[in-house]
Amino acid sequence: MTLRLGIIGVGTMGSDHARRIAETINGATLAGVSDLIPERAQAIHDKFGAKIYEDGLDLVRDPQIDAVVVATAPHETHEQFVLEAIKLGKYVLSEKPLTTSAAGCRKIVDAEIAAGKRLVQVGFMRRYDKGYQEIRKAIVSGELGEPLLIHCAHRNMTTPPVYNSDMSIVETAIHEVDVLHYLLGENYESALTFLPKKQTRYTHEGLHDPQIVELDTESGVHIDLEVFVNNQMGYDINCRVVFEKGEIALHAPQNTIVKVAESERERIPAEYTERFRQAYDTEFQAFVDGVANDALTGPTAWDGLVACVTCDALFASRDEGGVRKQVELPETPQFYIDNHMD
Amino acid sequence: MTLRLGIIGVGTMGSDHARRIAETINGATLAGVSDLIPERAQAIHDKFGAKIYEDGLDLVRDPQIDAVVVATAPHETHEQFVLEAIKLGKYVLSEKPLTTSAAGCRKIVDAEIAAGKRLVQVGFMRRYDKGYQEIRKAIVSGELGEPLLIHCAHRNMTTPPVYNSDMSIVETAIHEVDVLHYLLGENYESALTFLPKKQTRYTHEGLHDPQIVELDTESGVHIDLEVFVNNQMGYDINCRVVFEKGEIALHAPQNTIVKVAESERERIPAEYTERFRQAYDTEFQAFVDGVANDALTGPTAWDGLVACVTCDALFASRDEGGVRKQVELPETPQFYIDNHMD
Amino acid sequence: MTLRLGIIGVGTMGSDHARRIAETINGATLAGVSDLIPERAQAIHDKFGAKIYEDGLDLVRDPQIDAVVVATAPHETHEQFVLEAIKLGKYVLSEKPLTTSAAGCRKIVDAEIAAGKRLVQVGFMRRYDKGYQEIRKAIVSGELGEPLLIHCAHRNMTTPPVYNSDMSIVETAIHEVDVLHYLLGENYESALTFLPKKQTRYTHEGLHDPQIVELDTESGVHIDLEVFVNNQMGYDINCRVVFEKGEIALHAPQNTIVKVAESERERIPAEYTERFRQAYDTEFQAFVDGVANDALTGPTAWDGLVACVTCDALFASRDEGGVRKQVELPETPQFYIDNHMD
Amino acid sequence: MTLRLGIIGVGTMGSDHARRIAETINGATLAGVSDLIPERAQAIHDKFGAKIYEDGLDLVRDPQIDAVVVATAPHETHEQFVLEAIKLGKYVLSEKPLTTSAAGCRKIVDAEIAAGKRLVQVGFMRRYDKGYQEIRKAIVSGELGEPLLIHCAHRNMTTPPVYNSDMSIVETAIHEVDVLHYLLGENYESALTFLPKKQTRYTHEGLHDPQIVELDTESGVHIDLEVFVNNQMGYDINCRVVFEKGEIALHAPQNTIVKVAESERERIPAEYTERFRQAYDTEFQAFVDGVANDALTGPTAWDGLVACVTCDALFASRDEGGVRKQVELPETPQFYIDNHMD
Ligand SMILES: [Mg+2]
Ligand SMILES: [Mg+2]
Ligand SMILES: [Mg+2]
Ligand SMILES: [Mg+2]
Repeated sequence: MTLRLGIIGVGTMGSDHARRIAETINGATLAGVSDLIPERAQAIHDKFGAKIYEDGLDLVRDPQIDAVVVATAPHETHEQFVLEAIKLGKYVLSEKPLTTSAAGCRKIVDAEIAAGKRLVQVGFMRRYDKGYQEIRKAIVSGELGEPLLIHCAHRNMTTPPVYNSDMSIVETAIHEVDVLHYLLGENYESALTFLPKKQTRYTHEGLHDPQIVELDTESGVHIDLEVFVNNQMGYDINCRVVFEKGEIALHAPQNTIVKVAESERERIPAEYTERFRQAYDTEFQAFVDGVANDALTGPTAWDGLVACVTCDALFASRDEGGVRKQVELPETPQFYIDNHMD
Repeated sequence: MTLRLGIIGVGTMGSDHARRIAETINGATLAGVSDLIPERAQAIHDKFGAKIYEDGLDLVRDPQIDAVVVATAPHETHEQFVLEAIKLGKYVLSEKPLTTSAAGCRKIVDAEIAAGKRLVQVGFMRRYDKGYQEIRKAIVSGELGEPLLIHCAHRNMTTPPVYNSDMSIVETAIHEVDVLHYLLGENYESALTFLPKKQTRYTHEGLHDPQIVELDTESGVHIDLEVFVNNQMGYDINCRVVFEKGEIALHAPQNTIVKVAESERERIPAEYTERFRQAYDTEFQAFVDGVANDALTGPTAWDGLVACVTCDALFASRDEGGVRKQVELPETPQFYIDNHMD
Repeated sequence: MTLRLGIIGVGTMGSDHARRIAETINGATLAGVSDLIPERAQAIHDKFGAKIYEDGLDLVRDPQIDAVVVATAPHETHEQFVLEAIKLGKYVLSEKPLTTSAAGCRKIVDAEIAAGKRLVQVGFMRRYDKGYQEIRKAIVSGELGEPLLIHCAHRNMTTPPVYNSDMSIVETAIHEVDVLHYLLGENYESALTFLPKKQTRYTHEGLHDPQIVELDTESGVHIDLEVFVNNQMGYDINCRVVFEKGEIALHAPQNTIVKVAESERERIPAEYTERFRQAYDTEFQAFVDGVANDALTGPTAWDGLVACVTCDALFASRDEGGVRKQVELPETPQFYIDNHMD
Repeated sequence: MTLRLGIIGVGTMGSDHARRIAETINGATLAGVSDLIPERAQAIHDKFGAKIYEDGLDLVRDPQIDAVVVATAPHETHEQFVLEAIKLGKYVLSEKPLTTSAAGCRKIVDAEIAAGKRLVQVGFMRRYDKGYQEIRKAIVSGELGEPLLIHCAHRNMTTPPVYNSDMSIVETAIHEVDVLHYLLGENYESALTFLPKKQTRYTHEGLHDPQIVELDTESGVHIDLEVFVNNQMGYDINCRVVFEKGEIALHAPQNTIVKVAESERERIPAEYTERFRQAYDTEFQAFVDGVANDALTGPTAWDGLVACVTCDALFASRDEGGVRKQVELPETPQFYIDNHMD
């Protein structure tokens, strides 16, 4: 039995998912597509034969569509489609961030709790990266003792002029905000954003680059994160967890090593698509398998809310000159204690 | 349109392919299974719902089966199923070695040429490993100059008592024999097997371990290969190509690095399944896509024959005390010049 | 012409210097030794033939002693010997910290300025480590653009019970405080010490472990430093400088790589003596060569004062709960602008 | 008591030793110098104050010279000075190769045995490299089981036009010939030189490049060595010893790692002087300490002879088209069983 998927929003991310369904994913087919820009929907139709829906809500409502993928921009537009899917009892994979406000996340969370069944998976694909999975295993096994400190760096080669200081947090740092919360299995107590005085000359108006983020968890694990999105050098994601008896650190996969011109070289990829292709594929397959098993297992709407609330604290810290702010999380509903990603 | 696959032989390799079709591959379904041991076929049926065929030839002949995967043991049993598939104009993926004699390969090759169409893909999955693909790219691009030397090591942690000195060549070294032939895009001129006097104490009756293989290509590239299948340390596949201006070497993918107990550690996998999972998945998807496109692109029956003839030269060298033997390859038929893997 | 050196204080560090002079250093001989514990001085005399002075000041004053090495404990005892050497116009190498108070450093600085000639070298040996020298070269050359961020970790395997939270700063972090000031060629504007709530179970009464130090320089380079002195894993010194166009990071020298038990391993040394042997040797030779050339080139008394003042700010930050404190440095005297290590 | 050294031959190697004595070595002074080219001797005199001897034999005979360093070219000129030193009972460090013929080595060996005392150290400095020392330790300890195979590569960036195919063996491969003999503590049984058909376009008339050397020891350890002296890429010395339970491989020391332009880079040095500076310094200090202790500990004249005889077998193999040749070593004299480097 092949799952019939519909995608709403086929920009970069959505059209990559369309290709993924058509070429890579097991057990699913691309049945529908919707986009505000008709040419985009048409292109997907032409390539993969998906039916076009002018209105995304119609796609959600069509009984010929078994489950929905939401990849619209801007992110606040996710909300309506996710809510409609919940209303109809359909599974939905929403790109991250789930939506842009804690209030918006809350609406989705409440609707899902009311539906009495997990229906939403949020596209925090890093959790599916093999490296993060190995870190998770090291934390859970306790073989290196307790985790104490985490040092992270998120580096992009360049950003377009439209990318601004807010996006360093809510588009970029949000990946670490989510994945570290998942790795540690606990919430943040405080958050801090520090803007170092010295910036790269490769930044632009409206973007403070690099930025420093600090997070402290309830148990007292201290996290620092460098966000540097115009580093000119590569897409370079670092995460080192320091335990009581050792350290485990991400290593970007290398297939070969080259010796040339007086150096031995490992490649640093230029793009996130190369670095996290495996994570995206695994995430998407997990969604399809979850729907097939009638039991989603990935990041929840509550994870989406936790990320939103934490980013809000990071903004507040930044706007108050770098003071440490409490992360004011509501209590985790029993529904999400029962339904969380292991 | 989903491809209906049938598998003949569901031992370790075949049942892994069954799982792959069911869980990972895009565009195919497991429709049939056959095995001389009824319990094995039954287990696959129970798990994945495939129809059981007592006789593998019946599976090949069933119009409900679009294409065939042959993973029977011993390897000489591949031949009949491959020939039957060719006769019926059905695509077939045969595990490596295609068959165990040059004469057997020749029969398949002749049948395929007579059929006038590529129908056979041989399971030399290393060609699909990302590392070897990067090496291939470096050779083709010429950016490091011409390849001159290749140093390889194929290391297994342990082997069962049944594994003998012949298998070091025809089960193990055959991987390098095939993949280097592919990487370089040329044939071997000579082959040599040297048995070093000193052996590991972890070997057993009938197995000389380690062994040294040397191959020289028509253009004069010199290759050495250590085959060491009880190294107690890990599954460790090395390939370093030395060019005029640099070197490129395989690096087993690492997702994390651990620091513990006064050392910084990369993992060496214990099993080939971990090391080459990506290669197996990509190989199999290429077969399915090839069938869907009515145009196979992978390793050919001719590649199977080349490997067989080269292994025969390696045996002859070994049996004559390590002298360099000519590799007596018949001329490549035009059919396989037109149809080879790029 | 061989330089006649006298050492005051032959505990761990001082007796290692004695051995160094006898076995490794070019152009010097160990002529005198003094220690409050007579057995220690006697042992050095017995091994290397150095004359024993009961009172260290007598050693300084003896015309048979050309230059003096001060390695006494506790560190506040350095001051008197250094001042006496300056008074007599003799060159002196003082172990770090130069002395334990900014006021003490000031006295030495004033005496040296009054003497009108550089006479003091402070034992900040990290500056001579080949790795830090390569980082220095990268900063000075500008080939990676401007330095923006520095991530450091200073990790010891274990500490004795006497080691306390103050020593994390003034014995340990002081190395980074000095060497980063040297690498960047600028002063610190602010300093912060943060005590993460979660500590290792391998710490002891009176020691908060790990600790986080942050420093921001006048130009705005942001530095974070993990000080973790009971990490159970090894002596592991990390320093990554993030530039506008790349990164350079320390790598502890490796002479070999071992593959064993499913892992490929680089060694992490257990002891600073192994990690920084080259730095100690080079530092000491630089002192001897400086004396021979009548022109010291190493870390100055002013560098000793800068380190002291910065550590004081780190203490103040810690005692006020982790607030960022200004580093209140007096203006650099012209004498030390003219006389600083390149 | 400072050792008064005299150097005969101050080309590249000899003048580097002169500098080493003056700047780095403990316990020695440069007292004399001799060179056929008067300007060279004069330059050393001017820099370091050494007395000039027109005739090297006069230097050896002068009672003001305690021990002699022979670094003359061509290598066959070593013999007379070494023999004269032995005759006078003076210690002598001779650059490698000790001399260019087995017969010449034999004369020195016989003279030393007749003298009844070790007086000669041969400049096989690789034995003092920390990496090779760690390999030696792994072999001696047996912690990885028995050594079975050794894979080596000796790569130079470029060679001058005067460098020819013979020099690939007697100037270059001789380093591995000696150091592996030392590491394994046994002699070679057979030797083979293979000239791959395909050569680099960066070679020149008279130089087959690369070349392959194979050596098999008495116990049956099999060694392969790539000699590639115009690799355009760097000075890159590889040695991987494969044991029954693991592998240990040389790693050129790295002080830093750089990330730039989509790659993470370790440096490969351009010159042997950088790669083996530590080995040269340690070797030389060992000679000076050996003289001071009246007991040399380094490579012996017999090691020089072993290397010569082995190179002769490599030449014979090459000249007979790559057949495996016996290494016809005379029995090791008891004198050298009693006097060998541990
Ligand atoms: Mg790496
Ligand atoms: Mg590696
Ligand atoms: Mg490393
Ligand atoms: Mg390395």
